[in-house]
Amino acid sequence: MPEEMELNPNQHKRLQELNQALDSGMFVHVRRMLHQMPPCDVALLLESSPPAGRKVLWQLTDPEQHGEILEELNEDVMEGVLQLMAPETLAAATEGMDTDDIAYVLRSLPDSVYQEVLEQMDGQDRHRVEAALAYPEDTAGSIMNTDTITLRADVSIDVVLRYLRLRGELPEATDALYVVDEDDLLLGDIPLSTLLTVSPNVNVREVMDGNAETIHVSMDENDVAALFERHDWISAPVVDEQGKLLGRITIDDVVDIIRENAEHSMMGMAGMDDDEDTFAPVVKSTQRRTFWLAVNLCAALVAASISNMFESTLEQLATLAILMTIVPSMGGIAGNQTLALVIRGLAVGHIGEGNSRWLIGKEAAIGMLNGIIWATVIALVVTLWKGDWTLGVIIAGAMFINMSLAGLAGVTIPLLMKKFKIDPALAGGMALTTVTDVMGLFSFLGMATLVLA
Amino acid sequence: MPEEMELNPNQHKRLQELNQALDSGMFVHVRRMLHQMPPCDVALLLESSPPAGRKVLWQLTDPEQHGEILEELNEDVMEGVLQLMAPETLAAATEGMDTDDIAYVLRSLPDSVYQEVLEQMDGQDRHRVEAALAYPEDTAGSIMNTDTITLRADVSIDVVLRYLRLRGELPEATDALYVVDEDDLLLGDIPLSTLLTVSPNVNVREVMDGNAETIHVSMDENDVAALFERHDWISAPVVDEQGKLLGRITIDDVVDIIRENAEHSMMGMAGMDDDEDTFAPVVKSTQRRTFWLAVNLCAALVAASISNMFESTLEQLATLAILMTIVPSMGGIAGNQTLALVIRGLAVGHIGEGNSRWLIGKEAAIGMLNGIIWATVIALVVTLWKGDWTLGVIIAGAMFINMSLAGLAGVTIPLLMKKFKIDPALAGGMALTTVTDVMGLFSFLGMATLVLA
Repeated sequence: MPEEMELNPNQHKRLQELNQALDSGMFVHVRRMLHQMPPCDVALLLESSPPAGRKVLWQLTDPEQHGEILEELNEDVMEGVLQLMAPETLAAATEGMDTDDIAYVLRSLPDSVYQEVLEQMDGQDRHRVEAALAYPEDTAGSIMNTDTITLRADVSIDVVLRYLRLRGELPEATDALYVVDEDDLLLGDIPLSTLLTVSPNVNVREVMDGNAETIHVSMDENDVAALFERHDWISAPVVDEQGKLLGRITIDDVVDIIRENAEHSMMGMAGMDDDEDTFAPVVKSTQRRTFWLAVNLCAALVAASISNMFESTLEQLATLAILMTIVPSMGGIAGNQTLALVIRGLAVGHIGEGNSRWLIGKEAAIGMLNGIIWATVIALVVTLWKGDWTLGVIIAGAMFINMSLAGLAGVTIPLLMKKFKIDPALAGGMALTTVTDVMGLFSFLGMATLVLA
Repeated sequence: MPEEMELNPNQHKRLQELNQALDSGMFVHVRRMLHQMPPCDVALLLESSPPAGRKVLWQLTDPEQHGEILEELNEDVMEGVLQLMAPETLAAATEGMDTDDIAYVLRSLPDSVYQEVLEQMDGQDRHRVEAALAYPEDTAGSIMNTDTITLRADVSIDVVLRYLRLRGELPEATDALYVVDEDDLLLGDIPLSTLLTVSPNVNVREVMDGNAETIHVSMDENDVAALFERHDWISAPVVDEQGKLLGRITIDDVVDIIRENAEHSMMGMAGMDDDEDTFAPVVKSTQRRTFWLAVNLCAALVAASISNMFESTLEQLATLAILMTIVPSMGGIAGNQTLALVIRGLAVGHIGEGNSRWLIGKEAAIGMLNGIIWATVIALVVTLWKGDWTLGVIIAGAMFINMSLAGLAGVTIPLLMKKFKIDPALAGGMALTTVTDVMGLFSFLGMATLVLA
């Protein structure tokens, strides 16, 4: 059982120290501390601060680091910080950032500000960023960098080595150079480790990997992440229809996608947006959560209207009211177990047309087996508790029906949603619970009405 | 809203083709197809197959690839496959695998088999694997590789380059070489990109990064993952107390941890084990899910015993029974929203002692605001539906109390669990729902009894 990550003790202490220094107005001290921290740690501190402290902290950070801090922030927090920056300061901050990171930051600005920032950037940067922004969000194009180093196939490794020494530093996370022809068509790649281990006298063509896998610029970013994860890549080249090299995607951006996706499933199942800032202001958070609560109120009212159909039965026997929440509750849990399994299976790519029928059969069988087990248990409990075996039989019947249905619904609901392009992580749980609540109440109260009437 | 990943169309087709070929007994054809696929794709196919097909498929895979396929499989599926292998075949399969991957595979074997496999391995490999197995699971030591390339500080880059050419291939995912003294104390590192860009005449000492951050061998793997994610590392050196270099951790293992953690939160909240194989046999799956259903039955019986306290009130007015599920349901959803936010916040390290009080205040405020909103809405709905404003006032009061409590419970329950080292992702949801169910029923039926008595 993995434990959760946490701020390590040092960061904790630093956060408390900073907060104390802020509270006592020791801004010079705070500024010095912030300037000495790496940008990623400053970003974590900002994300871990309530909104008021966040504003003050940002004013005290090193303007030189603004770009690097921004790209590390999550979307919600970044939006808040961007509102504190003038367009020309922002344009200055983007200098030296990777193209895809600038695009990520600019995408969250209102249109007017965004144009202003673009105008403040220097010509070449603006051109690159505009190109990046032209690719749809969530595609390979939107997360690629254009800072590739390209080689020609007919030069010798020795020439390459001399060129690299002349050039100095390589772009971050470079693990391979790309070989292209005069039309920029990708011919292959050479890992840095190959450059270091082959003889300097051979030609690039002889040692390059000509079968290097490429990523099409319009590929969905989730498919990109799946490829990286499966192949343990560190970076991969991005090409267009013709096979022209457009840029490269690096593992750090892919890690962000993997985390976001996983958070999306987890937060989505609880009816939350995965962008939500942990320390967002009260009113904003309340607004965001309203939709889901409204949907749930409707679902709860639907369930109540089911019991309403059986009002006269409930009048006859109040014990039914006491027992009627048990069957829906068990169905909801069993269904949610199946649902979580299927959502994960869809997310990691295990479930497709070839095996979904098998999966439906399996989960239906588990549902029925669960139904038999829990019907027996609840029959015993209720018979002993209420001293009435008729009630025991009724609740057992309802339990069997609802648990069997829950297994089936837990797998068919997400598969159907997927087919109709509805996100099962977001809407699956609510749909499922409504089904198991309605069916649980209906079968229990319905059978009770038939038997006791 | 990110879409889920899926088997891409090619893989889908391949899976169907394979299944058809298997069904019609064309084993030679299947074998040929499997042998031509990269190990990671074979692993995905195995994971996407029901157990019966999985057995047949494994027999047809290329024994040369067995090691690489095994390390890509998830734990549950791997255990199934290991049962099909004799110890000596398994020992042969581990040849050439990374130490940490061999340790991962061996950890899931029963003790007797595990000893037998170790005995079948050649001396040096066995020694390395035993060393890896000596580190506790889930620490940096258990995920590190020992295949580092080390340099001395006083040699020239030219000598290093000649050594590397002589050596040939570098270990996978090598992005830096490590500089150590005669006692193996880590002095610094040199990224491959530095080796390629500096003058060959300088000494290692002059160009190495002497402030390279290191990972202590007993650090929790989740802290390791957080560091990698924050610093965009590709690999990092692992050291002992004295600062001796023991090995290195690479990003591919970290990506696995990040995904596992995120899946753990998501599956855990639904009462599922994150190791669960999507295509596990029915009986095994049912067993695994029983515990959580049993816990839930207890929780549901607790809730039923609350309504039982108000049996005479329920006898007087069946409408109460119809309405009594609404308040617990809304409290459960609101509480779960907060819970998901806090679990995510703990997982990414945003929440610590410095800010948890602020967070409790914020979520309590959201709970009260939610309470006011939904109390008003439900008062109107119930008054209109049942034509009785007294009922409307009663349910509104209960809604306010329960929603306020839900916000508070959603943040305090996971923080308390964390303090007592209980995993909030696993147990938080059930604890929370029990609280909101009990409080919802108690406040609604309690107030109804007071008012209507």
